[in-house]
Amino acid sequence: MSGKEATDNKEESVARRIVRGMSDGVSPIAGFQLEDVPMPEPGEGEVLLRVLYLALDPIMCSHTHARTASSRRPEPGTVIDGETVAQIVSSRHPDYREGEFVLSRSGWRTHAVATSVQILRRLDPALAPLSTALGLYGAQGLIAWTALRETGKPRPGETVLVADAGTAIGAAAGQIARLRGARVVGIARGARACVFVREALGFDAAVNGDARYAARRLRAACPDGVDVYLENADGALWEPIWPLFNECARVAICRPGASGAGLGLRPGFGGAARAVGDRLPAMMHAIVARGLIVRGFIHREFSEYYPEFLREMGEWLRNGLVRYREEVIDGLENAPQALADMLQGRYLGKPLVRVASPE
Amino acid sequence: MSGKEATDNKEESVARRIVRGMSDGVSPIAGFQLEDVPMPEPGEGEVLLRVLYLALDPIMCSHTHARTASSRRPEPGTVIDGETVAQIVSSRHPDYREGEFVLSRSGWRTHAVATSVQILRRLDPALAPLSTALGLYGAQGLIAWTALRETGKPRPGETVLVADAGTAIGAAAGQIARLRGARVVGIARGARACVFVREALGFDAAVNGDARYAARRLRAACPDGVDVYLENADGALWEPIWPLFNECARVAICRPGASGAGLGLRPGFGGAARAVGDRLPAMMHAIVARGLIVRGFIHREFSEYYPEFLREMGEWLRNGLVRYREEVIDGLENAPQALADMLQGRYLGKPLVRVASPE
Repeated sequence: MSGKEATDNKEESVARRIVRGMSDGVSPIAGFQLEDVPMPEPGEGEVLLRVLYLALDPIMCSHTHARTASSRRPEPGTVIDGETVAQIVSSRHPDYREGEFVLSRSGWRTHAVATSVQILRRLDPALAPLSTALGLYGAQGLIAWTALRETGKPRPGETVLVADAGTAIGAAAGQIARLRGARVVGIARGARACVFVREALGFDAAVNGDARYAARRLRAACPDGVDVYLENADGALWEPIWPLFNECARVAICRPGASGAGLGLRPGFGGAARAVGDRLPAMMHAIVARGLIVRGFIHREFSEYYPEFLREMGEWLRNGLVRYREEVIDGLENAPQALADMLQGRYLGKPLVRVASPE
Repeated sequence: MSGKEATDNKEESVARRIVRGMSDGVSPIAGFQLEDVPMPEPGEGEVLLRVLYLALDPIMCSHTHARTASSRRPEPGTVIDGETVAQIVSSRHPDYREGEFVLSRSGWRTHAVATSVQILRRLDPALAPLSTALGLYGAQGLIAWTALRETGKPRPGETVLVADAGTAIGAAAGQIARLRGARVVGIARGARACVFVREALGFDAAVNGDARYAARRLRAACPDGVDVYLENADGALWEPIWPLFNECARVAICRPGASGAGLGLRPGFGGAARAVGDRLPAMMHAIVARGLIVRGFIHREFSEYYPEFLREMGEWLRNGLVRYREEVIDGLENAPQALADMLQGRYLGKPLVRVASPE
């Protein structure tokens, strides 16, 4: 028996997964538990998947927080949710063959059984690197692309401001807007991220998002005001950005719970940190007086755009017109710490957990 | 010399107008002054207009309020601004003939000199009653039509909720949405206005906007939630309405300064009346979590739709598919009191001042 066969045998007997324990409400990853379970068996019409990459998504732990109503908190023992790139180990479904790559929402585990409904799409490693299906060439790229298509609609020469420009949605949005002819300004956390946004991603300007100096820096970086703004639900810089909106500016709010809003790590929309009074009347007045459009984007409603997005983004990727950066963390067991690090803003680009290598 | 000629001679010598005086900051019409001035003379390329109807618009007095920054308050002596329907008395412009009817922003006066640029459009009394150019068949109808076309996009069977349904924009919006197949619920001030909205305008339901009972009544009138909401900048019912928004609901904010918001007559967005805390984070969360679209409408940006709007609305009017109600107040000298009455919500439908009759 060769070494490889020995590994295969081991794979066939034990799978690992990370489940929720009891949360103490302090840390977003409190109580996450790694456990070994018997290898799942695919039934008729199912496939067995080996997870290769696991995407980290802040929303996956927002419900663990103590402030979440207990009725909405998942039961202890539930596998942590998340999008994955996986390879088919064995198939009992006529449309799938062993060895094929797929995008699937299998969660934090080494192996999963899936039906065709649970497979989001088949991946071709010749078209784009497999891992990009979890970022630029996947749901996050689609959100950015859709937000610009449906609401942002940047025209050549307009100023597009992108929050959290170093992360997957922000990086995608800024680069797409630039390909459409806009002048693109990114907000990033810290000097290192600003250099990355400007030099690696090719934004026209980057602004350090430190709230103390942001107002002045934003005005300087956007001398003609802001025509399109891509915000996440964090809103820490909402107040200095808002006065910059030009008439008929479009505001796309793209990322629920991003940057730890709702987790107590950073206050949402700046309101918790100090007594600001009720900002809704002033916001509504700005919407009317300047004819703003404000829209929320939740990606599940835009799957009809997937084919067009994949075609256009795939071409940009193959021609080197868009760039991305991944931070690869090895080993499922390191996923909880990677998630906590991501929520603290420690990564540039898209953090991915590499659970296994393709065979 | 006949009696008619004597009148003509009088008309040719004296014009009247209403100008701003010094405001005491208490009443929106404080300091409005009626004065006689010499009849203006049209120069080369100009026409002399006799004003027939004057539209009352709450925004025209919002800048008189003491809380407005003094730099933005118009000078005393300025004629009060407003849209008018007028007839050409004499023309020194090759494209206009004596006796023609036009829509013009001539302000509160009996006569005005205008160039072709100041004439918004030529009116044909055979297509629609002249006065409708100041309401349903004019800028307010266009705002309602555009808000539904650009943002509301009601689909058959959806629920469209319309604030201030008894006023010109609300009445137009509700009837257009109904013609597009939606179920339309109007909010109106008082029982009499509710009957008008339901019976005269044909809304499916009307809700009395009294804030004490509105939450329960709105839930009952919108059992399937709200898909489209047309709001003005008043927002007094924002809090009971907001929880009713379905996923992907569209919110069009259509009327700057409507209902006296900003004039101290009614608090804007309910915030001034009591300590509500900062509602911006919750509103932003709703926009993201439910994928809402919120858009402000200022009608000057939509003039490109005027021809299409006039065609469609004109057909509806001629076929009796839309209804409107006007409250006609006679005499320029009664315009200030009519404006004050309008801001207090005393009229059903569109208040118009009849300055003169067509010749």
